[in-house]
Amino acid sequence: MRRVYVLCTGGTIEKAYSEQTGSVQNLDSKIDRYLRALRLPDLDVQTWRLMNKDSLEMTGDDRRTVLDAVRERLREPAPMVITHGTDTMVETGMELKNELPDLAVPIILTGAMTPLGFEGSDGLQNLTESLLAARILGPGVYVVMHNQVFPIEHARKDREKARFVWK
Amino acid sequence: MRRVYVLCTGGTIEKAYSEQTGSVQNLDSKIDRYLRALRLPDLDVQTWRLMNKDSLEMTGDDRRTVLDAVRERLREPAPMVITHGTDTMVETGMELKNELPDLAVPIILTGAMTPLGFEGSDGLQNLTESLLAARILGPGVYVVMHNQVFPIEHARKDREKARFVWK
Amino acid sequence: MRRVYVLCTGGTIEKAYSEQTGSVQNLDSKIDRYLRALRLPDLDVQTWRLMNKDSLEMTGDDRRTVLDAVRERLREPAPMVITHGTDTMVETGMELKNELPDLAVPIILTGAMTPLGFEGSDGLQNLTESLLAARILGPGVYVVMHNQVFPIEHARKDREKARFVWK
Amino acid sequence: MRRVYVLCTGGTIEKAYSEQTGSVQNLDSKIDRYLRALRLPDLDVQTWRLMNKDSLEMTGDDRRTVLDAVRERLREPAPMVITHGTDTMVETGMELKNELPDLAVPIILTGAMTPLGFEGSDGLQNLTESLLAARILGPGVYVVMHNQVFPIEHARKDREKARFVWK
Repeated sequence: MRRVYVLCTGGTIEKAYSEQTGSVQNLDSKIDRYLRALRLPDLDVQTWRLMNKDSLEMTGDDRRTVLDAVRERLREPAPMVITHGTDTMVETGMELKNELPDLAVPIILTGAMTPLGFEGSDGLQNLTESLLAARILGPGVYVVMHNQVFPIEHARKDREKARFVWK
Repeated sequence: MRRVYVLCTGGTIEKAYSEQTGSVQNLDSKIDRYLRALRLPDLDVQTWRLMNKDSLEMTGDDRRTVLDAVRERLREPAPMVITHGTDTMVETGMELKNELPDLAVPIILTGAMTPLGFEGSDGLQNLTESLLAARILGPGVYVVMHNQVFPIEHARKDREKARFVWK
Repeated sequence: MRRVYVLCTGGTIEKAYSEQTGSVQNLDSKIDRYLRALRLPDLDVQTWRLMNKDSLEMTGDDRRTVLDAVRERLREPAPMVITHGTDTMVETGMELKNELPDLAVPIILTGAMTPLGFEGSDGLQNLTESLLAARILGPGVYVVMHNQVFPIEHARKDREKARFVWK
Repeated sequence: MRRVYVLCTGGTIEKAYSEQTGSVQNLDSKIDRYLRALRLPDLDVQTWRLMNKDSLEMTGDDRRTVLDAVRERLREPAPMVITHGTDTMVETGMELKNELPDLAVPIILTGAMTPLGFEGSDGLQNLTESLLAARILGPGVYVVMHNQVFPIEHARKDREKARFVWK
């Protein structure tokens, strides 16, 4: 069995529709349920929920929580997937890259433009791609979504196109 | 072929997720697409889009538009299904009942607590039920949702339970 | 709470794909799982699994099992839905009609042309319709599928059209 | 835009349920429809349907058709994904490896244990993974399914486990 860590921080990928308020919010964890829909026979997926926030609301403290959690996992190194809101995904990723200069595993940041379980969602595609990227890619920090792989320093969100582009 | 009119006014059942704003809104018509997912071999479904509004924003003018559209259809009478936001569904239905005392067909109001195409949506269930109710029920104005059939004067939305109850 | 009995006998509606044989078979019960996807807030659904057979393989004994199960339920009468293969659905229904002349509740036979959970399946539509028909229709034996309601003596399967037609 | 060739040969991944026969068969192409469900903003996917066969029925001639099609595509080299039945996927892959010693692109063979669009299908996961593998992997012939990547000479189908294992 190969291990992979999945660290969940919230973002659109985990948003849910609230019947009481009629709006989408970060309520419960969805990642685990969708991971179970994938066939991962030789993968030991260890999921950790760090927070469940819209990434526009993430603070410096929140990013330190993510960094600490990654450092903690690196004591028994294995590839990592971090689910994250797309708006500040690059900011978090750059901090990881800068603070972890001797990284020996790939860290994949991913998320979604439409929440998991909503018609037309890209969430399961991005999770699937990120888990495969975690297996194949070499050490470094990346954004993986929509069949694209960006070294973190080359990723920029294009809000209008609802996707990442090279910078 | 049996005819049924489907009049669409908006409401949660037709809301969609906007990737640009990260919120759910009444954007496009969804009803037709979901009707095509049903097997209705002897049904001549005639769909009319009247408006696409959150029912909390419906005005007296909007309700007159609905009433006029129903009257227009009644020149060639056939059962009707009206998709509508749940918050003021009873208000619209009571106006139809009061203004149309000699109704010879059933008029079914329906909607959803979670939009069509969102995980856990009750939209397709309610559409399916309403089309069957339109075939079976006698003349009158009804709310049909969640396997329940309410004559309009006995329907009350229980917001906390996210469903209609008898009054 | 209103009670409804759901008696499961198998048929296409419950077939599943077997990865070992590469064919579709009646393996496990699926009805309960799909009923849980519906919102039935005031319905007390009592499900009974009688058998899980392709209806072409149902014998006279099997039909007696169905009749006995219906009679047993009629001691505490409530509307019934019987899920059944479409090929001999009418045969079973006619036997119920003939053997139960004083029926005081509706008995709805339903099934599917494509199994529940397969793309394009009519199974959930037919279950949804049958549960509403069980609430609304008067005493008698019916086939309910595809927004159609047939008194059993007027139902005939049209195999080529993959649906029931009037006879 | 980056080009990828998708060559379709049939197999379980493309099987469909036939309402007339009650069995699963290779009827129409499904791959294109499912590819459209993925977000591939910078990918120029060129799909070619070579045949639509259960791989147990593939002949030497069929395999030559695949080899010829691959050779034809290699005149304008780009990564390739070949959808294929799992039973003889390794046989076809080994022939490609042996006949194409100077391969400069990755060729990914993939398929499914349960057809696309059937509940619990692994088809879309495998397509998603294969398209990402086609972007990342170096030259060679591989089987990619279930988050696993096998160089073709190390892939063996374990029929009982319904997956590939290392040999």
